[in-house]
Amino acid sequence: MPELRKDPVLGRWVIISTERAKRPKDFKFEPEEKRVNPQECPFCPGNESATPPEIYAIRNNGTSPNTPGWSLRVIPNKFPALRIEGDLNRKGEGIYDKMNGIGAHEVIIETNEHQYDLADLPEEMVYNLVDTYKKRIVDLKKDSRLRYVMIFKNFGAIAGASLEHSHSQLIATPIIPKRVIEEMDGAKRYFEYRDRCIFCDIIAQETKTSKRMVSENNGFIAICPFAPRFPFEIWILPRHHISNFEDTDENSLHELARILKDCLLRLKKALNTPPYNFIIHTTPITLKGIEFYHYHIEIIPVLTRIAGFEWGTGFYINPTAPEESAAYLKNII
Amino acid sequence: MPELRKDPVLGRWVIISTERAKRPKDFKFEPEEKRVNPQECPFCPGNESATPPEIYAIRNNGTSPNTPGWSLRVIPNKFPALRIEGDLNRKGEGIYDKMNGIGAHEVIIETNEHQYDLADLPEEMVYNLVDTYKKRIVDLKKDSRLRYVMIFKNFGAIAGASLEHSHSQLIATPIIPKRVIEEMDGAKRYFEYRDRCIFCDIIAQETKTSKRMVSENNGFIAICPFAPRFPFEIWILPRHHISNFEDTDENSLHELARILKDCLLRLKKALNTPPYNFIIHTTPITLKGIEFYHYHIEIIPVLTRIAGFEWGTGFYINPTAPEESAAYLKNII
Repeated sequence: MPELRKDPVLGRWVIISTERAKRPKDFKFEPEEKRVNPQECPFCPGNESATPPEIYAIRNNGTSPNTPGWSLRVIPNKFPALRIEGDLNRKGEGIYDKMNGIGAHEVIIETNEHQYDLADLPEEMVYNLVDTYKKRIVDLKKDSRLRYVMIFKNFGAIAGASLEHSHSQLIATPIIPKRVIEEMDGAKRYFEYRDRCIFCDIIAQETKTSKRMVSENNGFIAICPFAPRFPFEIWILPRHHISNFEDTDENSLHELARILKDCLLRLKKALNTPPYNFIIHTTPITLKGIEFYHYHIEIIPVLTRIAGFEWGTGFYINPTAPEESAAYLKNII
Repeated sequence: MPELRKDPVLGRWVIISTERAKRPKDFKFEPEEKRVNPQECPFCPGNESATPPEIYAIRNNGTSPNTPGWSLRVIPNKFPALRIEGDLNRKGEGIYDKMNGIGAHEVIIETNEHQYDLADLPEEMVYNLVDTYKKRIVDLKKDSRLRYVMIFKNFGAIAGASLEHSHSQLIATPIIPKRVIEEMDGAKRYFEYRDRCIFCDIIAQETKTSKRMVSENNGFIAICPFAPRFPFEIWILPRHHISNFEDTDENSLHELARILKDCLLRLKKALNTPPYNFIIHTTPITLKGIEFYHYHIEIIPVLTRIAGFEWGTGFYINPTAPEESAAYLKNII
């Protein structure tokens, strides 16, 4: 019998489909080969002039901006979805609303080595990456036109990566995205009813039952959520309540780097280097110390297709139960 | 300058991306070849025993169910996402909620000819199809466990079609899907403020400005919506207010068949037989004659990828303005 499960935050139902049950070996995945010659890659050292001037970098002492000698580099996206210069200029068009596409769109080049994926990088470099995420949010907070900073990674062409050199992206928007509002509203409703953070309650239940636990350390847990949209979906949550990603302290950032690398390695081994997206779900930059919301990272391997049913309903049909995904991921290493 | 546009019903923002502007020729699409031998296709005449017994069919006089002689056939999905037998058995698991996956999952085989796509079928057969959608909803309304009937079509493997023989699907659910609730809530808010149906206002504005109009007839208009998620997205709306698809009269179903075939043909010519999804957005079957909601069909060509940003924000980045999509589709025939 298929099972309908409800995401407790968003109220989104998923169908855990027993008729179509799939195990890891059913997701036969041919990893994408790196095809681009590093000499032609705009993200490789020596080609710094192929990108807009850098915003931030981790560099060897004595090297100049926009030259080699870096191990991580932040640049504006050359084809930005939003532009940093200008006014919002909100206006109507009959019954419709629009505004100028003001915002920031940055690319974080995660390594100077073309052949490595994020899962392969040393933990210290993953720490540098999450620390850079934090630094960029802190910097963009100063721009009063902006309301939200979304940090995400697309890995693999199928998951939307247009360049194969390992990178993350940041898009800062002048409005709070709909999906964020929905999540905050859901968490707020729970808090009003119970006077507790729903994510803290999720962490307590998952830690107790352990059946969807993938990995854990002192600071964080990684679980397959109760109502996942996708097979092998993983959420990483800080054990202790914290609403804003940018308020994570140095020690916790180290623990986050460790568990993020660990989860990505597990996915890589379990599914043969699958394409994936990960997204940091955090509080809008205009808010701070929110009791009811708890930042977390959602990792989505791209193994199934979104089709008419999902578009029409907002439901997802998931052929792999999270208990099965978690057991497999837990034992893979 | 990119433009941020807001969907007036859902409050969903999209970024019309000028930096990444794409024209029809940029979506070079290699149409999927039909590969399966009709003798091995479970949806072809002669192979009726490869599917569960038919629920409904349009047949030549004197032919028996589950034998050749049909031109359209409705069957239960062999691998249903939801099952029709059983009780909902709602229950909790700590802070989580779940229930049995009760519902209907049917397949509508649109033609007995393996080689034809829906866009190629004679208008009369498209009429038979939309009339069958209506008949199936009317029948499923009798099941008091069900709250919503979602009718959709996935065309092409990339759009989620697992069999190439032309077919649509129907999934009836015991809960009203989140996406439907959001749409109805948005439409209701507008109605409370203005005492008018938002879709009727959209139709009035689009008819007046005409700049996003793709096609029209006496009963329906087809537009590229103001804030489309995807290039060449098309919405078909009945000109006169009607909330429930199943209340469409015979004459209007003929007009709907005509404009649906016309839109699919335009997409086929414009984009070289692209994969697509279409979804009928209608009122829950438990409601009737709703003033604030207006049924419509959304057609989504699958040309761009959903990636981390879309997952995290619920925003969409669309590289083609709807005015451009509409002008191109309007002039293609």
